[in-house]
Amino acid sequence: MNRLLINADMGESFGPWVMGLDEHVMPYVDLANVACGFHASDPHVIRRTVRLAIEHGVKVGAHPAYPDLVGFGRRSIACSPDEVEDLVLYQIGALAGICQAEGTRLHYVKPHGALYNDMTKDPELFEAVVRAIRDFDDTLPLMTMAARDNRMEKEIADRLGVSLWFEAFADRAYDSEGRLVSRKMAGAVHHDTDVIIDQAVRIAKREPLTAVDGSDLVLEADTLCVHGDNDESIAAVKAIRQAIRALETER
Amino acid sequence: MNRLLINADMGESFGPWVMGLDEHVMPYVDLANVACGFHASDPHVIRRTVRLAIEHGVKVGAHPAYPDLVGFGRRSIACSPDEVEDLVLYQIGALAGICQAEGTRLHYVKPHGALYNDMTKDPELFEAVVRAIRDFDDTLPLMTMAARDNRMEKEIADRLGVSLWFEAFADRAYDSEGRLVSRKMAGAVHHDTDVIIDQAVRIAKREPLTAVDGSDLVLEADTLCVHGDNDESIAAVKAIRQAIRALETER
Amino acid sequence: MNRLLINADMGESFGPWVMGLDEHVMPYVDLANVACGFHASDPHVIRRTVRLAIEHGVKVGAHPAYPDLVGFGRRSIACSPDEVEDLVLYQIGALAGICQAEGTRLHYVKPHGALYNDMTKDPELFEAVVRAIRDFDDTLPLMTMAARDNRMEKEIADRLGVSLWFEAFADRAYDSEGRLVSRKMAGAVHHDTDVIIDQAVRIAKREPLTAVDGSDLVLEADTLCVHGDNDESIAAVKAIRQAIRALETER
Amino acid sequence: MNRLLINADMGESFGPWVMGLDEHVMPYVDLANVACGFHASDPHVIRRTVRLAIEHGVKVGAHPAYPDLVGFGRRSIACSPDEVEDLVLYQIGALAGICQAEGTRLHYVKPHGALYNDMTKDPELFEAVVRAIRDFDDTLPLMTMAARDNRMEKEIADRLGVSLWFEAFADRAYDSEGRLVSRKMAGAVHHDTDVIIDQAVRIAKREPLTAVDGSDLVLEADTLCVHGDNDESIAAVKAIRQAIRALETER
Repeated sequence: MNRLLINADMGESFGPWVMGLDEHVMPYVDLANVACGFHASDPHVIRRTVRLAIEHGVKVGAHPAYPDLVGFGRRSIACSPDEVEDLVLYQIGALAGICQAEGTRLHYVKPHGALYNDMTKDPELFEAVVRAIRDFDDTLPLMTMAARDNRMEKEIADRLGVSLWFEAFADRAYDSEGRLVSRKMAGAVHHDTDVIIDQAVRIAKREPLTAVDGSDLVLEADTLCVHGDNDESIAAVKAIRQAIRALETER
Repeated sequence: MNRLLINADMGESFGPWVMGLDEHVMPYVDLANVACGFHASDPHVIRRTVRLAIEHGVKVGAHPAYPDLVGFGRRSIACSPDEVEDLVLYQIGALAGICQAEGTRLHYVKPHGALYNDMTKDPELFEAVVRAIRDFDDTLPLMTMAARDNRMEKEIADRLGVSLWFEAFADRAYDSEGRLVSRKMAGAVHHDTDVIIDQAVRIAKREPLTAVDGSDLVLEADTLCVHGDNDESIAAVKAIRQAIRALETER
Repeated sequence: MNRLLINADMGESFGPWVMGLDEHVMPYVDLANVACGFHASDPHVIRRTVRLAIEHGVKVGAHPAYPDLVGFGRRSIACSPDEVEDLVLYQIGALAGICQAEGTRLHYVKPHGALYNDMTKDPELFEAVVRAIRDFDDTLPLMTMAARDNRMEKEIADRLGVSLWFEAFADRAYDSEGRLVSRKMAGAVHHDTDVIIDQAVRIAKREPLTAVDGSDLVLEADTLCVHGDNDESIAAVKAIRQAIRALETER
Repeated sequence: MNRLLINADMGESFGPWVMGLDEHVMPYVDLANVACGFHASDPHVIRRTVRLAIEHGVKVGAHPAYPDLVGFGRRSIACSPDEVEDLVLYQIGALAGICQAEGTRLHYVKPHGALYNDMTKDPELFEAVVRAIRDFDDTLPLMTMAARDNRMEKEIADRLGVSLWFEAFADRAYDSEGRLVSRKMAGAVHHDTDVIIDQAVRIAKREPLTAVDGSDLVLEADTLCVHGDNDESIAAVKAIRQAIRALETER
């Protein structure tokens, strides 16, 4: 990947409950991480979201999660690697089937929430996710967190023959290891649009960010994660889209 | 189809709970209707069941259902046709993804329980199921109940370009319309193996059965549904398998 | 009951998903129908809702439903009467336990959605709900729909020793039998606040409404159902509250 | 408590799936830990189990769990203490309501599976469970694992005014801290009936057991946990029942 692609979580409504401004954010992203029914979404919401992605030429990725609607997939569940492998595979298949019915195909996989975090800390879980992807379709990249050191992830993905897409965040502070600063800490989330745009541009140009301890941090990111929860975040997405487009024009 | 294929519901365990003697019945069937997680099964059970089918050269079909684990998909839920279409599509995709990961493919779709019954009574639901199949893969047949009059089903399937497989039962009494006699009636279920074998052979030869009112009933069936719940039913399946094989040898 | 009590559905958020403006509507109602986790709500939402009701001196009622989160309890499920009895009992108990922990008690039961509608059409289901209440605590009234003819409901409730509270709607058109006109029909829902207030006052005074066929309809209602979904409905609730209070002052 | 009471998990069937030989083990126990619908059971199974307990004069305890049917409550879920408090309270209430409908009452609470283990390791979770009980009914004891050192549990329970019942196992090996040896280790589970009876009698008499490192271990247990999964375990329960009864007669 050369361009820095913009991805956002989508399809997080469930039954009668609405979440996210999917219709407002879809025009500005490249990649839609579509919930698969385990932490959010349902068959109808998935289908509507896939259709919306197609309308806007956005690629669909699977956003599988631990089975936990009430906790929105944000709580770690002590699943075995085999359980993770199978539940990721199930969710990928369900979404891929709906993509196929809508005349498109699945393009990548990005685990959600606690599963996304857990796999970067536990090589057995990471390998379980990679196995699910390899067995389903080894041309699908796995999206994971860019950090200073991604050797574990690269070793596993290389060994199993699956490619990785690394993602970074424009609105979050990083520590010197390239991990996100906990939301519980002051300054963990950027709210100033200028700061967000600056961080997005640095990531796109692979220029160093400043970690919270003042050190330089270069993240080799393929994609930038944005949010479409409210008007403020939609405005940020538009600004990021324009800034990245301007960069591409410069080249 | 020329041979009368034997199908059975499989993969109906769930989490720690076991149901069905899948390993004992799989050797004797041609088609495995695999539960997709809505009325039974879970990602791990599905995968194990698909592997077992592959070992025995058995074709895998999707067995989608209303979302009702506690009711085992046996209770009608007043879903709209669109809801049915999307939930069938989701379940087909999930199972197809696991088939793909295991190096096989989905071969057909047979709705389960209340959904199976409801679609034969409501053309809108029947069409919803057919649309789900058509949109996913219009080469997959839909398995439905053989009756004296299947014009509704044929009209819809023809119009949408999906083929049908009709199934009959060797261990159930029929009324003159070719509908199953309710289990609440005496004599609804055959327990005598000779009676079951005789009915299986008549269905395979397309010879008339005797309906409960004494009238002749010819069912044009492509497949015979058997059960693998207990030792008695396994014994019946073996006997049916032998009887059908003997017929094929005769030819 | 002498005063016309105002009731509203509450606690219909679920996990991360918000529904309803409970904090805005709670100050204007007498009775809160609290979802019990089967169609909406979760243990945390229930507890927060019970606390909110206590703060405002509002009585808590159980709002049990068919087990169907994704369908929000709006789809009939073909449960047996025994199944309905037990699932209503379970939900009543869960909510009553949280009331007890918060130092209050459950005051009544009002089934939700499809279960509410189904029980008025099927005496076996109505009796199942009444049995659940009687077995749990026969001093709790069951809230059901006021119609021209409530003999079925009264006969069953009398026989089992449970009292009934009849509810009416200020914002819905009625047919001559005192049943709500389907939302699919034009004019089924009143949007004009004056019309809503007029209907509320007529119900409070037990003066006749005009049914859609022009006939007079007197509803003997104990309580009026209001909604707190959006700003418009909150405004209507306030106006209804004032109108009813004015009536009481007049006396 | 003076007598060593015998407790067993019950009501672990779910919908169409059967687990446990409840009818065979109920005659030999004092206390039935009844699943509450989050890891197993459903409203109908709970009610049937409560009735069975009443028939045999067995006291009913709540057996609340993490919300995880497919994982049978055996997988830790990273719930916050507040989440644990509310979900335990919900489950206690649901079961207590069914007890009330059946003319009995809840007698104690014993968390299940991963929640049971997690609370003994995390004082915040232990306190959350104790708060749920205290708020619901502070006369209900909490059943927890007897170990060499139960100071944490006692401090919290004392402070919040809830009593504890300590349980021990006759069929499991202990380490020197009085924790169960992991099932993954050889010798973790006793299968010899004589060994099981001997351990049960020592626990009843408060005589020392021999831990796996050879050290003496005295457990101050109020109750002994037994299982009713299969014929072998039922035979062990009967033998334990007889041995304990013989001890009581001796006195």
